[in-house]
Amino acid sequence: MGGDYGPKVTVPSALKALLLYPKLELLLVGNPTKIHLLLKKTNSILRKRITVIAAESVIANDAKPSSAIRTSRGTSMRISLELLKEGQAQACISAGNTGVLIGLANIILKHINGIRRPALMVTLPNKKQGKTLLLDVGANISCDSASLVQFAIMGSVISEHLMKIPYPRVALLNIGVEENKGLSPIQHASAFLRNTPVVNYIGYLEPNELLTGKTDVLVVDGFVGNVTLKTMEGIIRVFASCIKPSRDNKKQSFLTQLSMQWIQRYLVHQFDQLHPDQYNGACLIGLHGVVIKSHGAANQHAFTSAIEKAIQTVEHQISQRIAARLDEVLPKE
Amino acid sequence: MGGDYGPKVTVPSALKALLLYPKLELLLVGNPTKIHLLLKKTNSILRKRITVIAAESVIANDAKPSSAIRTSRGTSMRISLELLKEGQAQACISAGNTGVLIGLANIILKHINGIRRPALMVTLPNKKQGKTLLLDVGANISCDSASLVQFAIMGSVISEHLMKIPYPRVALLNIGVEENKGLSPIQHASAFLRNTPVVNYIGYLEPNELLTGKTDVLVVDGFVGNVTLKTMEGIIRVFASCIKPSRDNKKQSFLTQLSMQWIQRYLVHQFDQLHPDQYNGACLIGLHGVVIKSHGAANQHAFTSAIEKAIQTVEHQISQRIAARLDEVLPKE
Repeated sequence: MGGDYGPKVTVPSALKALLLYPKLELLLVGNPTKIHLLLKKTNSILRKRITVIAAESVIANDAKPSSAIRTSRGTSMRISLELLKEGQAQACISAGNTGVLIGLANIILKHINGIRRPALMVTLPNKKQGKTLLLDVGANISCDSASLVQFAIMGSVISEHLMKIPYPRVALLNIGVEENKGLSPIQHASAFLRNTPVVNYIGYLEPNELLTGKTDVLVVDGFVGNVTLKTMEGIIRVFASCIKPSRDNKKQSFLTQLSMQWIQRYLVHQFDQLHPDQYNGACLIGLHGVVIKSHGAANQHAFTSAIEKAIQTVEHQISQRIAARLDEVLPKE
Repeated sequence: MGGDYGPKVTVPSALKALLLYPKLELLLVGNPTKIHLLLKKTNSILRKRITVIAAESVIANDAKPSSAIRTSRGTSMRISLELLKEGQAQACISAGNTGVLIGLANIILKHINGIRRPALMVTLPNKKQGKTLLLDVGANISCDSASLVQFAIMGSVISEHLMKIPYPRVALLNIGVEENKGLSPIQHASAFLRNTPVVNYIGYLEPNELLTGKTDVLVVDGFVGNVTLKTMEGIIRVFASCIKPSRDNKKQSFLTQLSMQWIQRYLVHQFDQLHPDQYNGACLIGLHGVVIKSHGAANQHAFTSAIEKAIQTVEHQISQRIAARLDEVLPKE
């Protein structure tokens, strides 16, 4: 129900995902009238893999987390998370209010043993045709060094199992590469990670190296991570808008128009993997259960990407693998 | 002497600036042998507007600020700042060690009354063909709310006088637009700025709006500002490298090569103003005297931009205007 477009985007995306993944089954939680209306023309075979679950209300996109969480009973978001907790679903995907989703997930789902606070993680493309995991991108406004270390371990496990990288490189985002640079939680986390054998820690990475593929996992506190991600998205959208034809296009000659179209097609192809839609779906990690946050403004293509992310995370048993790794690392009682 | 290329870039840039600005006179501070070698072929009229000032040593680009500052006597950077302090120069431009430059400037130059800590400011292009001032981009790792308010006032004065905007809009960078978002120094600065009539405060701005031109001045602490700037530069450089022809170019047909060249020329033109070289030259503001920090990797074009920034800042008497505005605002004894 959430996001800027609600079921108009999420329902068609769900149908698309069912076509792409023949074993997938989906529970659509929300206003049944609105959902059924959008399912009317669906063929009966696909329809059998959908269960509509009624929810009385929806959390507003601009609701303040503290009060929205207090009054969340019966909302589509809360019901989805409860289905996850009860094992009736393996993952929960939402384009709704990020703060409320994180807050509710924190309350409803169990934390993995050894994780104090979950982190929000995105998968970014990089110039070396690989993927860089960036976390935290906004679950925690500020992070102490212990949280940063936990994020590094979680990111490392995910890169290993999802990206199939045997010994993933892990870096801390900082404004310089010298050990004495930056804020003290980063410096402390760095000192700790240097002596943590389960993490292949490579030191600090500066933000201008974000897409260069010099690291597989990049760890940062939630405020700075969110700024980094949003800065990147803003710049890419400016580039994308520069590529669009100008309004005066009709005044231009046919040949110029044709060349412009050709350029656009070339660029769209060239920059396609950098477009935020391609990596939509931030993963809330550190909890028992898979929770994926889609961008609120996601279109059908982007929301389908978020569903795909959920499928991969479930199939690779990411939560279980994080729990197992932490079990190895944590001191035994 | 500083930066990745030293006099090989700075001296030709100086000559270019002298050609562009007929009233400009330059003091070149550093190793006289190296500088004179690069001036050998300069015509005698230009040569008269250059004074070479010998300095015994140079601060290393990777020197640790605390110890480098202690042993800075006789270095080109320190001598340049002393010339500025003594009134023999109106501005100091350096591509050298940022931390040492800020530290030395803090020690050698007087602070403007009412400013506790200077800020590093860059001028970014925006989609509306205007300029957005971003500060602090790295002079202060962390900032309290009072510093953020001081930065807002300084940015406002500079936008007014340098960009000729009568009542410049000032925003605080934050990860959401609601008043309760983000870190507490930002929230306190926001509350204060809402009641500060000398600043046209418009609220929070998210980093994805960085280049949209929705604000004239964007205030942030030095750590996050540096991350924002470096993220932006990194993304732009990735785009620039995507535009470059691939190495297999020779295998392509003549027509394809020609089209590629055409596309590149179109894009270079389209994105030219967004390229970091165009806005090279961060201004250290809050001190009596103009100090410009060029990117260490600046090429001749970029270093000339930094010199031009110094000229504009001096001509518009920015330090004096900031002092006057603060004098208006500060409570009288």
